[in-house]
Formats: sequence, C-alpha cells, structure tokens
Amino acid sequence: MGKSVTRLKDIALQTGFSVNTVSLALRDSPRITKDTRELITKAANELNYLPNQVAQSLVRQETRSIGLILTDLTNPVLTAVAQAVELELSKRGYTTLFATSNHNIDIEQQMIETFRARRADGMLIFPCNHQELDHIRTLRARNYPVVLLVADPQASIDAVCIHEKVGAYKAVKHLIDMGHRKIGLIDNASDRGNSAKPDGYAMALSEAGIELDPRMMVEPRDASVEAGYLAIERLLAAQTGATAVFAANDSLALGALRYCAKFGVKVPETLAIIGFDNIEFGEFAITPISTINYEIERISALAIDRVLELIDCPDELPEPRTTQIEPDLVIRESTDKRLA
Amino acid sequence: MGKSVTRLKDIALQTGFSVNTVSLALRDSPRITKDTRELITKAANELNYLPNQVAQSLVRQETRSIGLILTDLTNPVLTAVAQAVELELSKRGYTTLFATSNHNIDIEQQMIETFRARRADGMLIFPCNHQELDHIRTLRARNYPVVLLVADPQASIDAVCIHEKVGAYKAVKHLIDMGHRKIGLIDNASDRGNSAKPDGYAMALSEAGIELDPRMMVEPRDASVEAGYLAIERLLAAQTGATAVFAANDSLALGALRYCAKFGVKVPETLAIIGFDNIEFGEFAITPISTINYEIERISALAIDRVLELIDCPDELPEPRTTQIEPDLVIRESTDKRLA
Repeated sequence: MGKSVTRLKDIALQTGFSVNTVSLALRDSPRITKDTRELITKAANELNYLPNQVAQSLVRQETRSIGLILTDLTNPVLTAVAQAVELELSKRGYTTLFATSNHNIDIEQQMIETFRARRADGMLIFPCNHQELDHIRTLRARNYPVVLLVADPQASIDAVCIHEKVGAYKAVKHLIDMGHRKIGLIDNASDRGNSAKPDGYAMALSEAGIELDPRMMVEPRDASVEAGYLAIERLLAAQTGATAVFAANDSLALGALRYCAKFGVKVPETLAIIGFDNIEFGEFAITPISTINYEIERISALAIDRVLELIDCPDELPEPRTTQIEPDLVIRESTDKRLA
Repeated sequence: MGKSVTRLKDIALQTGFSVNTVSLALRDSPRITKDTRELITKAANELNYLPNQVAQSLVRQETRSIGLILTDLTNPVLTAVAQAVELELSKRGYTTLFATSNHNIDIEQQMIETFRARRADGMLIFPCNHQELDHIRTLRARNYPVVLLVADPQASIDAVCIHEKVGAYKAVKHLIDMGHRKIGLIDNASDRGNSAKPDGYAMALSEAGIELDPRMMVEPRDASVEAGYLAIERLLAAQTGATAVFAANDSLALGALRYCAKFGVKVPETLAIIGFDNIEFGEFAITPISTINYEIERISALAIDRVLELIDCPDELPEPRTTQIEPDLVIRESTDKRLA
C-alpha cells in the first residue's frame, strides 16, 4: 500500500507546530489559541487530512456503523427498505454495512459474524428463515442490539415490521366482499417458516364460512415475476374454479397478470388478482393491481429508532419488543368488479 | 456501553494461561503446543470470542471494506448491481459499505469523505452527475482506488460500464429496421450530464438520413414508471406523428406502455416501444417490452476486479482505464411488428 495518507506529523511539518499541538488543535482543545487552531485547520484541509475513524472508534468503543442484512434485492420492497434505512442512518451520522444472505442461512450467520468482528454497533436483519432464529436470539441474549424487520414468533428478539397476517386477511376479505368464494393463494414464504400470509388467508376464509381447499394453495419457486407466471398456470390447470387469487407479493401478482393476458383470461372479470407491497410496477401495470400497502419509510424509521435506543442502553438491554404496523388495502382495477 | 465483549483476558482467566499465551495461541503461533492451542481455542469459542478486526485493521493498514455509492435504488438494474457487487465482494472476503446519494452531489461528496474516514480500501461509484467528477478525480489523483460504474468522458478515472451509446444506437437502429422514421426519445440523463443515450439515438437517425426533431425528445421528471407515463403523454400531445419511442430505461418504457393501454394506443401497431436494462418487469409486462440487455454480473465482476487490482498496487496507481461492455438487443412484442 503505497498511498500517501496525511498524518498529524505532516501537518506539524507544514505548520511548524508540534504533533501534540496539531492534535490538540484538531480536537478543538481550549489549550490552543484561536489563531493557531485556524492555521492548523487550514493546513489540515489543504493536505486533505481526515481523522482516522478506525483509530477513534477503538478509543470510543463504537464505530457508528449499523449492519443491514437482507435476503436479496430482487423484491422492490426490500430494496426500498434498504434505501430508506441507509438514508435515515446517514442522517443520524451512521454508516450502513450492507449484505444480502441470498436466502442462505449459512451466509446469514457468516455476515452476522463479519459485522460483529467489524464492531458494528447494531444490526437490522431480514432473516432468511423465520423459524431458525437461534443464532440471532443468542446475539440478543448477549446484549447485542439487533432488530428484525419481520415478526419474531417467539418474541425474544426486537422486531419492527408490517403485520403480514392482518394485511393478508384484508386482501382476502376484500375478494370475499367482491363476491368471490373460490380464492387461490400464491405464497412462497412457508418454506422460509413464515406462515403469516397463509394464516391471514385462512382467517378471512374461515370467518366467511369458506372451507380451505389445499388445491387452491400454490407454492411458487421464489418471489419473482416469472414464478408468479408459472404458479398461476398450475393453479388454473388444477381446475378448481378459482375466480380470484391472492399473491403474497406484487411481483408474483404481475406474473399472474402476464399469464392471464397471454392466454386470454380476463382480469378482473374471469380472475381477480390482488398482490402485496404496493410497488410502482403494480400501480402502473397495464391492468393496475390491487394490493396491500407497505409503509417503508415508517417501518424503517421505527426500526432505526429501536436499534439506536438499544445501542444507547447504558447496561443490560430491556425486554425485546415487537412493533407490527397494520397495513392498508389499496383497491385498483385488477379486483374492482363484483363477481356476477 | 455495558455490553460484555470477550477479551483475551477473559480467555486467560478461564483457562489459566497468560494473556500472552492466549494471544499467541489464537494467532496459531508455533511457540504454542497443539494441546494448549486446542484448549484456548475451545474456551475462545465458548466465550464467543471474536478477534477485533478494527484493531487488526489499524495494524494491517487495510480494512478489507469497499464503499459502494449509488444514486438510488428505485431502478431495478441499480439494485441488481448493488446485490451483485455485495455478493462478489463477500466471496472475496470484503465487506460492502453502502450509500445512496439520492442524486444529490453534496451527499455524494459527503459519503465519499465518510467512507475515506472509515478507511474503505477503495470505492465503486455510480456518480450523480457525469460532468461533475472533480471531487472523484482528485481522489484518484491522490492514488485512491476508485472505479466508476459509468463511462467517464474525461477518462481520468477508472470506469467499468455498459456502452450506453452503442446500446441506444442498437435500440433505435432496430426501430428504423422495423420501418419507423418518426421516433421519439424519453431520456432523463441529460440533466445529469450524461448524453450517451441521446448521442446513440442521434447517431442511428443520422445514419438513416432522418433529421433530428427536438419535439420528439421528451425529458421525464425522473427514471420512474410514473415519469414514463407522463412523458409519453407529452410526446403524443405534441402531435409529431411518432410511430415509435425509445425510452432510456425499462421503467420509463413500462410507464409509456401503461399510458397506451389506458388510452387505447395499440402497442406495437400504433406505437412501438423499446426500453433499456432488461428488467424482469419488462419481460413479463402484459405486452413484453423490447430492450437492451444490461450484463449486471459481468460488469460488477469486472469493476471489482479493477478496484481490487488498484488496491493491490504496491505504489503509484497505473493510468486510469475505461472498460465499456457493448450490450445486446432483446426483441419482444412491443416492437415486433413492421410498420405498415
């Protein structure tokens, strides 16, 4: 590494003051006169001097950095969360260390270790599996500030998230209110141990006295548009007589919409489609899709509030707390027609 | 900060060895016997000991972290770049420090300073303005490893990027080959000092002997779907007789497509639409949109190769080098019909 980094010594040489005087001046010590401080600050700027935060963080025992671990960035709502978190942390003087687990729990664990080794002051995590949280629970039990961005069913880790079950309930309730009784479900989260959306779906059906039909529940390969396209094909092939479908995210719903357009299935007349997340691509689809709104800024800000609160705890962390935001229904063309 | 971090002293207390012995054992010193090392390693694991990388990086003069600065994460191609960069860096043992400038050059400068203060070994930057690069040029001139993810017109900073001008040329050439001569342009980059796509558009028109018509060139508010929707409205209102349009990214193209669907403009019969980037939402739009492919993995890997090469330079950095990848045309329904 031959790159030249300006050191206190260089400023001392340039100005004729001692290294000690330079150091005190740059730390605004009252022992240094205003004139001297101004001379030294000017030289420091000219030499492009930057205080070594790595060294400072050793002294302060904090790095003012937060680790953010997401599963992936292909879902626009997760990327929007990443951006909102980064902007908000930056405003509050924190740097974001960023990683994606790619839905692999080994990578997730490894990134958690990496961020700890780099002394991140805390972490925000979108875990890849909602049932395998022991490694994060251990972290929390050791008083490390960590906040999940999904609900923790065991409630022993802090979490700030959207209330997925209530959101799913509202989506399916809306379909029922429009006269549908044969309602499909496309959800890819159960393999990740998250049954919140299927639970909301079942709750709305049960409330309306509609029996669950397992043939109506299709599991897509992943959360992509193409996966939604392939899933709706399977649902329609199963000849269940479905007149409506709830897709667990807007990308899946957009894939279903594309399939319907390609094979002449009219939306919403023959099949009503509702998604989840409220991404712009759904709003501006040729047939705009109904959805459940994900309040990205609000959730990100609350999660950051919480992790910073934990970081500032002088001693033992308080009991973990879960904050779930109830989302709103957004009705658009893809469901906006009563079943005849 | 009352959180307990395991220190060498704790392992020494637990095992009965001296701090010095513990330290040597954990660094695999040959001066320590295998049995002792095993005992100490076991205790270290039980106590959840992590070597302090902040301290280690002070000694090594490198942090094995790379700063990644993007303009925003609303464009799926940028988020895909962010993910590809992070995964690739992680494979190579680097952590990603992440920030978005939100198209604000002051924030961009500030994040560069922040990442330098945190001793990032290098940076990958998607700058918010392609003409205002002096702050990055200064960084490079001081031998700091930095690679742009867009072409640097002044060629005094390393860059690895897609060849936007050639891509735009291919898109417009395709429209001309399909019989179009009245071709609109929706491009939002000229306010950011990037005229690569308008240049490619002009080149294809000029080659075909078609005169540039300024009324055909519409500037959208930003790069969102909604901005494309509003831009095509202005283009069609201008009564230019456009039979085709090239949108500088797929989100803009999808907005144009939505507008056409809403107001009964047939795509591609009445208006052919081609985008740029090849995002999944374009591929699975109700009318799949033609586009220019953005080779995300390849560009990310080449950019990382280059920044790591610069980091490993023992002395002065070599002359900056620009690598531009020529992208391919992807033809889909939105343009796949010869003009009658």
